[in-house]
Amino acid sequence: MASERFQQGMEKLKELTVPTADSFTGHMEVGDSFKDIAPDLTRMVVEFAFGDVYSREGLDNKQKVLTTISALVAQGTPQIGMHVITGLNVGLTPDEIAGCIMHLIPYVGFPRALNALKVAQEVFAEQGVAISGSPN
Amino acid sequence: MASERFQQGMEKLKELTVPTADSFTGHMEVGDSFKDIAPDLTRMVVEFAFGDVYSREGLDNKQKVLTTISALVAQGTPQIGMHVITGLNVGLTPDEIAGCIMHLIPYVGFPRALNALKVAQEVFAEQGVAISGSPN
Amino acid sequence: MASERFQQGMEKLKELTVPTADSFTGHMEVGDSFKDIAPDLTRMVVEFAFGDVYSREGLDNKQKVLTTISALVAQGTPQIGMHVITGLNVGLTPDEIAGCIMHLIPYVGFPRALNALKVAQEVFAEQGVAISGSPN
Amino acid sequence: MASERFQQGMEKLKELTVPTADSFTGHMEVGDSFKDIAPDLTRMVVEFAFGDVYSREGLDNKQKVLTTISALVAQGTPQIGMHVITGLNVGLTPDEIAGCIMHLIPYVGFPRALNALKVAQEVFAEQGVAISGSPN
Amino acid sequence: MASERFQQGMEKLKELTVPTADSFTGHMEVGDSFKDIAPDLTRMVVEFAFGDVYSREGLDNKQKVLTTISALVAQGTPQIGMHVITGLNVGLTPDEIAGCIMHLIPYVGFPRALNALKVAQEVFAEQGVAISGSPN
Amino acid sequence: MASERFQQGMEKLKELTVPTADSFTGHMEVGDSFKDIAPDLTRMVVEFAFGDVYSREGLDNKQKVLTTISALVAQGTPQIGMHVITGLNVGLTPDEIAGCIMHLIPYVGFPRALNALKVAQEVFAEQGVAISGSPN
Repeated sequence: MASERFQQGMEKLKELTVPTADSFTGHMEVGDSFKDIAPDLTRMVVEFAFGDVYSREGLDNKQKVLTTISALVAQGTPQIGMHVITGLNVGLTPDEIAGCIMHLIPYVGFPRALNALKVAQEVFAEQGVAISGSPN
Repeated sequence: MASERFQQGMEKLKELTVPTADSFTGHMEVGDSFKDIAPDLTRMVVEFAFGDVYSREGLDNKQKVLTTISALVAQGTPQIGMHVITGLNVGLTPDEIAGCIMHLIPYVGFPRALNALKVAQEVFAEQGVAISGSPN
Repeated sequence: MASERFQQGMEKLKELTVPTADSFTGHMEVGDSFKDIAPDLTRMVVEFAFGDVYSREGLDNKQKVLTTISALVAQGTPQIGMHVITGLNVGLTPDEIAGCIMHLIPYVGFPRALNALKVAQEVFAEQGVAISGSPN
Repeated sequence: MASERFQQGMEKLKELTVPTADSFTGHMEVGDSFKDIAPDLTRMVVEFAFGDVYSREGLDNKQKVLTTISALVAQGTPQIGMHVITGLNVGLTPDEIAGCIMHLIPYVGFPRALNALKVAQEVFAEQGVAISGSPN
Repeated sequence: MASERFQQGMEKLKELTVPTADSFTGHMEVGDSFKDIAPDLTRMVVEFAFGDVYSREGLDNKQKVLTTISALVAQGTPQIGMHVITGLNVGLTPDEIAGCIMHLIPYVGFPRALNALKVAQEVFAEQGVAISGSPN
Repeated sequence: MASERFQQGMEKLKELTVPTADSFTGHMEVGDSFKDIAPDLTRMVVEFAFGDVYSREGLDNKQKVLTTISALVAQGTPQIGMHVITGLNVGLTPDEIAGCIMHLIPYVGFPRALNALKVAQEVFAEQGVAISGSPN
């Protein structure tokens, strides 16, 4: 029987991933693909990451995803794509997502920013979203 | 004679640091304290970081500072304090700043989040701001 | 009312920190010292870190602490001291703890290993434990 | 003529990699594949990493490999696979190896743990080892 | 109309990338490939990285590229290849480039050095340059 | 009895640290201060870091120290000071050392560069060396 926090986590996860079914699946696959060697991973992701942390007050969903993307850009971790999709889901515009990555150049350097721009560009193309205008 | 970008950077820097004079001074000191060994550092900070990057469209000031803080938490760099002050200046609430750090636990781990909370807590005390409520 | 996971986490935490009261206090202070700005941090540390993760099967307590110390050495994060104390509590010898740090030199480089040795050395002195012999 | 430390390193390396010939070859290839541009790399790996460091007293072989894997998970470096094989060679169970990675989530965050689980899962499949039970 | 700093950056970039056209193209593509989502990136790379930073006095071009490669090896970022080409352009020998990576082993550990050696080896092969002698 | 590599390492270390006795002492203290918990550390530092790595052909001493400093700036490790002293010993000018740190801004971001400039500035003051001129 699922715990209350698991249910809370699943609801939050659905809220973050509507209307893009891909994104919900993506997040769930994170845990599900390791059922054989880490059967409790899905529970941890749903209960802790979504039930505890994403369900916290203090930041709205757009801020939460922007914050997540910023940290992953700084770490140089390759999982940014899934969070770019989630960002689009919760209403971040492509300009905001690209703007976040560009903003980080003075703090993390060009190389990590370039890696992240490449992932964002691919996700924007896959999701068929266009960037509105152009700062210059 | 200051370049156009330098003037743009100085204006942006003032906008970000009103009304807390400490914060403006803090950002300027970054460069000024190294005048002997890196006389061009102030120019780079003002022209590039503030004139080019902080002056970009795409994100509002609150988002820019939230993004900055998130990246520094992930890096584990100790300069978060100055950006927490800037965050308060541009209208981020203490709940948003603490919420940003708490939100990053699943991505950067407890140790880096704890280091950042400590710095934020000290800045909140120094600036005399109180956190509103309490997620539980 | 404390959740089942909270109780499980508290029991695990006590198990890990007997017989050194300092260590239990140290771990609890992590959360408690941020009650004003992050009132849910204690719950997250106890429920998730201790109730979920430290309570997992798969590794014994000595392995869990050795694993923790290794990751913190690699990150260069300064919180190693608390975990060195916990390591001594669960039965790691000073030779094992110093041996772990020395073993990491080829993987993380001398600088991060030296930082960690310094912390371990201080904890060994504070706790009055001696290193047994000497590899040569 | 090989130095004493080189011989000691080769013996240690063989001890760590019996009975999986792949693993010995893997470690030796590290150096051998760079003979053209770094002809002294093999000697450094064998003499220093294996002759000096892996030959140290203080930790047993299982602890040494667990420690190594933990540091690489924290760094986010991609060479974990070779060390997972070595871990199986020296007697770490798949549960211990997966348990080590899961244990690190609160310290290094989900993204680096997920990257490492993926590599471990692939190695377990290649080596035909099964995970015993399931924490839940 | 291009700014003075843009022109200075372009001249510096050409100086660094003669006589290998690939290298100039490589650096320009960095910005140009993101014209849709970050139209100001090319300007930032040329004006700031090349016009401000690479145009600084204090280090010669060989030192600048050696310094760059060292930092990227330490970060574990994958963009080293482009800078290895630039290094060859400005007169670094393959021995110096491989020597730089080997020199970093005690500071960054074997894994990051091995990743970098692999990239350097591929670039040396593509560019048809041979390493002169062999330290042993 | 000291090994041949130990003697080679000690000679290299003396060469790098003439004429500043402080610097030789500084490097030796690295190992000596951990004699109680890691009695083989001095041997590893002298044999491997100095006997094997610093004694390699391929780079001259100035390049070796510049490379070291660059990697430590990128890692954000605090041991840069000792290497700045060594850099002055082997003939790097303060302009080259400060120039190296400034050059890394586009690759590692402002925060890590600022931390390093602060350490370099303190060492230059302690050692009584002045920076020659000023790029602007």
